Amino acid sequence: MSSQERLVESARALLWERGYVGTSPKSIQQRAGAGQGSMYHHFAGKHELALAAIRRTAEEMRAAAETQLSAPGTALERITAYLRRERDVLKGCPVGRLTQDPDVMADPALRAPVEETFAWLRDRLTRVLDAGRDAGELDRALDPAATAAAIVAVLQGGYVLARASGTADSFGQAVSGVLALLAGHAVAPAE
Amino acid sequence: MSSQERLVESARALLWERGYVGTSPKSIQQRAGAGQGSMYHHFAGKHELALAAIRRTAEEMRAAAETQLSAPGTALERITAYLRRERDVLKGCPVGRLTQDPDVMADPALRAPVEETFAWLRDRLTRVLDAGRDAGELDRALDPAATAAAIVAVLQGGYVLARASGTADSFGQAVSGVLALLAGHAVAPAE
Repeated sequence: MSSQERLVESARALLWERGYVGTSPKSIQQRAGAGQGSMYHHFAGKHELALAAIRRTAEEMRAAAETQLSAPGTALERITAYLRRERDVLKGCPVGRLTQDPDVMADPALRAPVEETFAWLRDRLTRVLDAGRDAGELDRALDPAATAAAIVAVLQGGYVLARASGTADSFGQAVSGVLALLAGHAVAPAE
Repeated sequence: MSSQERLVESARALLWERGYVGTSPKSIQQRAGAGQGSMYHHFAGKHELALAAIRRTAEEMRAAAETQLSAPGTALERITAYLRRERDVLKGCPVGRLTQDPDVMADPALRAPVEETFAWLRDRLTRVLDAGRDAGELDRALDPAATAAAIVAVLQGGYVLARASGTADSFGQAVSGVLALLAGHAVAPAE
C-alpha cells in the first residue's frame, strides 16, 4: 500500500473507533507509519483526509449493495439477498454510524457523502421495487419509494436493536419481519 | 425541583449532549446548581447518577409508547398513532442513541435499562399485533414478534435516515412505508 493509501485507511479506522473529534493528525500518521511531511504532501490536513476516508467507506457500501441488488432474480429475491447478506451486525453500519458523529454532521462537506449514499440506496431499492411491480411480481398498490425508505430504516434500526440486546438475533428478526410484510404484497404467478 | 431531581435532569442533559465520557461530576453539579456535598449526599458518584438518568429516560419512553399503544382502537390504529406521534425526529431517540455510547454499552448496569426498554417495546407491540390477529383484524399468517421487531427497527432507522438527509421527511416516509406494508395484512371486516 502506498503511504497515501495507508493514511486513508488509518483515518477510516480512527474515525470509526474515536470519531472525528477524537482523531488527531498525529494519531493518523502514527497508525499509518507515515511522517507529517508525507501526510501534508498528500492532504491539506485532517479535514481532507477524513473526507477521503468517508468517501471510501461510502463507495464500499454502495458497491456491496449493488452486488446483491443487481444480481439476477425477482425483486423480492434481490432484496432478500441484500438484507440477509453476512454483516458484522454488532459493529454496526460504517456509514449509518457517521450520522451520530456531531462533527461530521455539522460539516456540509463531510456530511455530503453520507447523505448521498443513503439517497442512492433508497433510490436503488425504489428501482428494484419498481421493476418488481412492472414485472407483475409485486402488488401495483405498493409505493416503491416509501417501501424502500422502510427497508433501509429496518436495516439501520436493526443495528440499534442488535446493540441494545447484545445479540445479532434482533437484527435478523427485524429483517425477517419486513421481508414477511413485503412477501404479503407479492403477486402469485399465474399457473 | 429538589437538588436530587436537578442533578438527575442535569445528568440526562449532559449524557445526551456529551456522552458518558464527556460528562464530569463537576459539570453535572454546575448545571444543577448543586454543590459537590449535595451530589455525594444523594449519589455514590457519576455512575449512580448516570444510571438514575438513563432509567428516567427509559421510563419516559415507555410511558409515551404506552399512551398510544393502550388507547382504544384496532391494532393498526394504535400502531399508526404510535408511529405518527409527534417527535423531535432530527434530535433522535434518547434511548436508541445510548446504544452508540461505547461507555454505556460496555457497562452492564448502564446498558440494562436500554436493553430492557427495547425488549419491553418489542413485547408490547407483539401483544398489540397478537390482539389484532385474535380480533380477526390481521392476517393469522403474520408473525407478531418479527413484525414488532421490524416496526421498532423502522422507528430507530428512521432517525438515522432523517439525520443523514437533514430532514424529518425521510423518517415520515419510512413510517408510511411500513404502515402500508402492514395494511396489506389487514383483514377486511365482513359486511
